[in-house]
Amino acid sequence: MIAMGAMDSMFKDFKLIAGRPVYIQVQDYMKHLIIKSALQGGQKLPSTRELSTLLKVSRNSIIAAYAGLEDDGFAYAVPGQGNFVAMTTPGSVTVASRPMNWQDHLSGHARLAEELDLMKRGIRAEKGTISFTSIAPDESLFDLDNVKRAFMDRMAVEGNVLLNYGYAKGYKPLMDYLRLYLEHKGVDMKGKDMLITNGFTEGLDLVLSALDHRHGSVLCENPTHHTAIKNLKLHGFGITGITMERDGIHLGELEQALAEGEYDCAYFVPSYHNPTGIVMSPEKRQGLMKLMAGYDIPVIEDGFNEELRYSGSHVSPLIATAGAGNSVIYLGSFSKVLFPGLRVGWVVADEELIYYLESLKRARTIHTSTLDQSILYQYLHNGNLEKYLKKARAEYKRKYELTLACCKEFLPYTALSGDGGLHLFVAFAEGFKTRELLEACRAQGVIFTPGDQFYTDGGGQHTMRLGFSRVRDAEIRKGIQIIGRAATRQLMG
Amino acid sequence: MIAMGAMDSMFKDFKLIAGRPVYIQVQDYMKHLIIKSALQGGQKLPSTRELSTLLKVSRNSIIAAYAGLEDDGFAYAVPGQGNFVAMTTPGSVTVASRPMNWQDHLSGHARLAEELDLMKRGIRAEKGTISFTSIAPDESLFDLDNVKRAFMDRMAVEGNVLLNYGYAKGYKPLMDYLRLYLEHKGVDMKGKDMLITNGFTEGLDLVLSALDHRHGSVLCENPTHHTAIKNLKLHGFGITGITMERDGIHLGELEQALAEGEYDCAYFVPSYHNPTGIVMSPEKRQGLMKLMAGYDIPVIEDGFNEELRYSGSHVSPLIATAGAGNSVIYLGSFSKVLFPGLRVGWVVADEELIYYLESLKRARTIHTSTLDQSILYQYLHNGNLEKYLKKARAEYKRKYELTLACCKEFLPYTALSGDGGLHLFVAFAEGFKTRELLEACRAQGVIFTPGDQFYTDGGGQHTMRLGFSRVRDAEIRKGIQIIGRAATRQLMG
Repeated sequence: MIAMGAMDSMFKDFKLIAGRPVYIQVQDYMKHLIIKSALQGGQKLPSTRELSTLLKVSRNSIIAAYAGLEDDGFAYAVPGQGNFVAMTTPGSVTVASRPMNWQDHLSGHARLAEELDLMKRGIRAEKGTISFTSIAPDESLFDLDNVKRAFMDRMAVEGNVLLNYGYAKGYKPLMDYLRLYLEHKGVDMKGKDMLITNGFTEGLDLVLSALDHRHGSVLCENPTHHTAIKNLKLHGFGITGITMERDGIHLGELEQALAEGEYDCAYFVPSYHNPTGIVMSPEKRQGLMKLMAGYDIPVIEDGFNEELRYSGSHVSPLIATAGAGNSVIYLGSFSKVLFPGLRVGWVVADEELIYYLESLKRARTIHTSTLDQSILYQYLHNGNLEKYLKKARAEYKRKYELTLACCKEFLPYTALSGDGGLHLFVAFAEGFKTRELLEACRAQGVIFTPGDQFYTDGGGQHTMRLGFSRVRDAEIRKGIQIIGRAATRQLMG
Repeated sequence: MIAMGAMDSMFKDFKLIAGRPVYIQVQDYMKHLIIKSALQGGQKLPSTRELSTLLKVSRNSIIAAYAGLEDDGFAYAVPGQGNFVAMTTPGSVTVASRPMNWQDHLSGHARLAEELDLMKRGIRAEKGTISFTSIAPDESLFDLDNVKRAFMDRMAVEGNVLLNYGYAKGYKPLMDYLRLYLEHKGVDMKGKDMLITNGFTEGLDLVLSALDHRHGSVLCENPTHHTAIKNLKLHGFGITGITMERDGIHLGELEQALAEGEYDCAYFVPSYHNPTGIVMSPEKRQGLMKLMAGYDIPVIEDGFNEELRYSGSHVSPLIATAGAGNSVIYLGSFSKVLFPGLRVGWVVADEELIYYLESLKRARTIHTSTLDQSILYQYLHNGNLEKYLKKARAEYKRKYELTLACCKEFLPYTALSGDGGLHLFVAFAEGFKTRELLEACRAQGVIFTPGDQFYTDGGGQHTMRLGFSRVRDAEIRKGIQIIGRAATRQLMG
């Protein structure tokens, strides 16, 4: 039994927080004291009346807390005598062992993943920094009420179903919706099927796992999406990058590469190409697919942000351009368009490939969050995408034009690309180092993404990507002005 | 211009559904007609007034639909003349190509994933079948109102944050909660860290990717969780299975295997071992960890369903038993305990390993659904787990006792195990074939899981797993009676 004075000081740091049952808070607190050995095995606990006074909570809460402690093996009751700390509490009996040196147990794959992890090599920005590194959506545009309504609507329809196991392929109402959505983009869904994934990234990872590696080589645009470069490398592929022109990939260079090499697949980003922001022209899409039709090479199409296109005229994705052809694997997602936090993407491809991808998906993550899928479905069904896109396109277009104007006014660039979307790509004179520019700008509170990380061949050291989606108007102007001054100084010096 | 008569028949299959804006439904419908070439390029569309009459929707809806069709490139307006179908509509220009034979492009890994995919080799049950194959939770226990409240609470606090990108490691409030939760289980978190994953399965997959494969060999219980067997094989590991005794793994056999072989890791399921339902005794846990302490072998602990234990006395997970030791990788999940639809699991291990796992996770799926994580966090914070567990344990215990009693009454078994949880494991005499039993039972509308798929060495053909969590009381009795009669007939015949 502890003296009341000792207990006074022992229990005085207990603080109630809102929204969590009081008895659970008491229980947590007592467990903490027991684990830290502030209360020891065999020691008598304060009576429920005493503890109620000490912690200033109701005696019922203490009674419930003591019952919980007993259930969890932290305490025991002796009838007529009170409650005692258990002699052997969780964690009190342990086995001594030599510490393991984890470096001895890591795979080369894990080391490579860490080495290629840009988030671990990235630029740390202090608070208040103007950051052009993100191309995530502007969360102030989010229509939270529609998301809440979608959740409540769907929970009312089939809450029990949503919270239990779903199917590896995906949540059927969402797949039905997306099938129609893709048909409206001109995709011939006959003989094709769909797999829902945890966003674009899982889709790409599964597809790269499913493809044969006999040539160990992949074709893509140069520069291209850095996550794709990382995952291609992690899957052991060598990368042949094809130069980008103002309207998309250089077809002549592609033709030559196709004639000279052997490839397991090709990866293209026809809409809002990352990092250049270029939308491949309809003519080039036709040309590209005509060229690829002569080769037996699967084409992975990254549908990145095609929904954000501002212009009225329709541009078909490659998978639509391919018509009844079955060589294109389309990776779609609304992540950047709607809500990245909902991890939902989809793969559309020949039904035979999807059949194998389904098994891979099941082995990796069983299935994609049904809640995420069902909220997305209901949000789409309720007609919110159309309304949201109207608002988002207008806002991003405004920001795009502002960013473009600021670049033209302040930056000593040699080339500038970006047909809209969420970012622009800037090239300075050959020999210019944007990593040096970044150092100078960071010291003045402005950061951006150096372009070299998007290149497949170590090039692009004179380039940078400016993501404007999450930067406020005044800061776009101020930030680009600072970059411009630093770049001019660097060019002169 | 189409004659009104033709239009009449053309538009008569339009049907409004509830909950989706009318103009979007009109737009969808018109796109469908255009894509199917029922309306052709250059053709004049009905006037807004005509279509309003034909489809019986407001003229404003038609006006909005036509504007949407124009935005999406399906139609164009000629001032003073009306609306026309676009000459080149999405999908109307396509490239011809030879069909691709996907069998020529699949990796061995994809083929193996398909081959090991039990869902593709599984027993198809007709509606009305009494199925003992599932060990998913009984969804009628779900406290949907608390889940809804958790969602609304969290959305109110930081809806914008939840819907934008999160962190690869996980959602911080959830990780803080789980850290405390694990400390209360006796886990020494010093020097350890956590990664949130898309359920247990992703956690296991990432860990197996991160571990060195120099010996190409893994130790585990025999039988063991079939998903683990699948994923170990997919990662190229050979499997050494150790016999199960009534209180857990056979330590003598394990000792011998450790002395004779070299292993990259060990995988154990100490609580509600799948498929035997055995809870490893505290003494055996100590013995196991003492034995493992003599070897430099990472231990993967599958925390499967330890929350469901009915008994009051505490059993520490292996990672707690290991104390300050850093060799255990703990894979946790509330999937089976709470809601499998929320794809949230966690890996707790040495912080150095987690550092690499974080990069692997980012490369595979970027991060786990923030919404799932935040709902789970708020649900836990609100104190719902404790209340839910009380209800769920009582209900599963009742069903467990019923199933046990029925097995004892009806089945000609030779061994029966399962200390609670969601399933029992039954062995018949050596030489008995439960796959033959399954065929006989299926014909009578009862199915179960044949035990051989849990064995690492092709054994267990005389065993079966009975999952009772989702079977109603009357059907538990009826189903086991049918299995018992069929088994008796098979034994005699």
